[in-house]
Amino acid sequence: MSFKKLLFTPGPLTTSKTVKEAMLQDMGSRDHEFMDAVKDIRNQLLEIGHVSKADGYEAVIIQGSGTFGVESVISSVVKKEDTLLVIANGAYGERIIKMAKIHQMNLPILRFEEDQIISPEVTDAFIKSNPSITHVACIHSETTTGLFNPIEAIGDVCKKNNLVFIVDAMSSFGGVNIDIKKAQIDFLLSSSNKCIEGVPGFAFAICKKSELEKAKGNARSLSLDLYEQWAGLETNGQFRFTPPTLSIMAFRQALRELDEEGGVQARELRYKTNKKILDEGMDALGFKQYLNPSIQGHIISSFLYPRDPNFNFENFYKKLSEKGCIIYPGKLSKTNAFRIGNIGQIFPEEITYLLETIREVIEIDHILV
Amino acid sequence: MSFKKLLFTPGPLTTSKTVKEAMLQDMGSRDHEFMDAVKDIRNQLLEIGHVSKADGYEAVIIQGSGTFGVESVISSVVKKEDTLLVIANGAYGERIIKMAKIHQMNLPILRFEEDQIISPEVTDAFIKSNPSITHVACIHSETTTGLFNPIEAIGDVCKKNNLVFIVDAMSSFGGVNIDIKKAQIDFLLSSSNKCIEGVPGFAFAICKKSELEKAKGNARSLSLDLYEQWAGLETNGQFRFTPPTLSIMAFRQALRELDEEGGVQARELRYKTNKKILDEGMDALGFKQYLNPSIQGHIISSFLYPRDPNFNFENFYKKLSEKGCIIYPGKLSKTNAFRIGNIGQIFPEEITYLLETIREVIEIDHILV
Repeated sequence: MSFKKLLFTPGPLTTSKTVKEAMLQDMGSRDHEFMDAVKDIRNQLLEIGHVSKADGYEAVIIQGSGTFGVESVISSVVKKEDTLLVIANGAYGERIIKMAKIHQMNLPILRFEEDQIISPEVTDAFIKSNPSITHVACIHSETTTGLFNPIEAIGDVCKKNNLVFIVDAMSSFGGVNIDIKKAQIDFLLSSSNKCIEGVPGFAFAICKKSELEKAKGNARSLSLDLYEQWAGLETNGQFRFTPPTLSIMAFRQALRELDEEGGVQARELRYKTNKKILDEGMDALGFKQYLNPSIQGHIISSFLYPRDPNFNFENFYKKLSEKGCIIYPGKLSKTNAFRIGNIGQIFPEEITYLLETIREVIEIDHILV
Repeated sequence: MSFKKLLFTPGPLTTSKTVKEAMLQDMGSRDHEFMDAVKDIRNQLLEIGHVSKADGYEAVIIQGSGTFGVESVISSVVKKEDTLLVIANGAYGERIIKMAKIHQMNLPILRFEEDQIISPEVTDAFIKSNPSITHVACIHSETTTGLFNPIEAIGDVCKKNNLVFIVDAMSSFGGVNIDIKKAQIDFLLSSSNKCIEGVPGFAFAICKKSELEKAKGNARSLSLDLYEQWAGLETNGQFRFTPPTLSIMAFRQALRELDEEGGVQARELRYKTNKKILDEGMDALGFKQYLNPSIQGHIISSFLYPRDPNFNFENFYKKLSEKGCIIYPGKLSKTNAFRIGNIGQIFPEEITYLLETIREVIEIDHILV
């Protein structure tokens, strides 16, 4: 590789040089220095969610990708006699349905169109007509499209109906201010390579301790046992199984840099600024977005393919990549689109460079947008 | 941290500067450069095991720790109607038993003492008296003690009885020459942070394709579905879920360096030399080893605590750590011991430094070994 590439994706992201450099020292997984880092990280994750151990919340780190974290929570927390409602409006909601089916859960499903957010009113009515429901799971920032579901209003519905509320905030936590208590979330999930701007290697769950404790002895696998993972970390500060030591050291540095930037508020503002510049620039180039702006989040956007029949996504991707810009394919079930993320170490300058590069590629290929 | 620490552990290990530096560039998980690296790695892993795709073998990378890989194989391959024999003589064999119990498998168990290797004759008799057995799993290098189980002879027994043979070679693959065909292994497991000398982040399985294909639709979880993980990699070269991109780039560099060192043969020789120097030095200091040398491998060794009642392991560990040497606690069920690994970027010079440091610490504390 000859030059740095910019990742305009939902993660793995462009990270800072110093975050990556934090991986240049070998680290023993049972050494005190490492265990101290893990402890710091777990506390800081709670802080970002506006909760603490004293409030009755716990942060658990789970090896693997974000999906491993989601499956750890779902498969540890929902008991055989429980009923999990999954509310889905995109591929990531469908993924929770898929894992719940593998675990043969009692599984009512409430689906909304991919271009619609979850309706709290419809959810409430659905729950009232399905009194066996005990748990509710949904996605906050649906990376399929880029929409934000109204988790505070859904949390209200859950609590009014005395249900455990599980939120997959994979691509939003750290880049959107989420008050876990206010949104009445019992389990929130995210991963190392999203808005905290670390490198991939692990997921994490912020858990209401009283609910986490109920998961004891209920897990459906050894590796993804959320309760035992937590108990291990609490007992001696160590992971049950080898942790991704260097990804964790990078994450500690990423948390420091989030703090230096001014916390989630400042980061959210930067991402929103990126999004605004991207929107204006793509609009000027003639691109149309898939979502109505009113439900669009500031993490990632879906752009419809140009109307020109000569447009070829693989070619477009490759030419952008050759100029150092990595964009992301679409994931819509019925529409052709590509995605552009604004998160990671991406600043207005990088968005401007991307827009300029897209303009060049479109012009060279004589693509009518 | 002010200075470099040497890890005398079973992993995460001391790795080369260049392996860690391979993580200094962000990498898109769906970008061609990354997918090419994954393809190279998968082919090279087969080569190290003396097999190839043409022979009918496949390498699958699984996010998470080594245990995630073992559970992926066990929970994907062993069907409800199958019977898994686990042969155990240490904590890692017990871990397979634990996961098989969680998955409620038909599970006959054959145990040997921690200081004894698995007897192929006893195994054969056990299998003959349990005709329902379909699969056999055991550990090659039992990190609990450091012994090597005779996998070729056990493989013979498995094949004579038409059984699927699963070998956890976590701490030996790459540091011990293993001929997968000769040992008649159907599934072999190891991880990124062992003898290939990469950093932690993933496990990998080398699988006999005809057996792997039988696992379709049989997995007990989404994340650890071995067949689907393989099918995903084969279909478009991509992981189903976010891979630890930078751990993978480090691993590719580690494979290059293994090759430059002269392959597994040269690495095995270096580890054996390390082990010889360690043995002689510890013997000269008065330390006794737990295992009979005839069954001891060259990966890690268990040393009994000194007879001096003033010996305190935590203190010993801390003082060695302050001088840059990280050793490993014991894991024996009935005996107090600590462990020293010879693997990773450890050369005779580092072993000599460790021995000198142990001598100093023992002398300063007036510990009678």
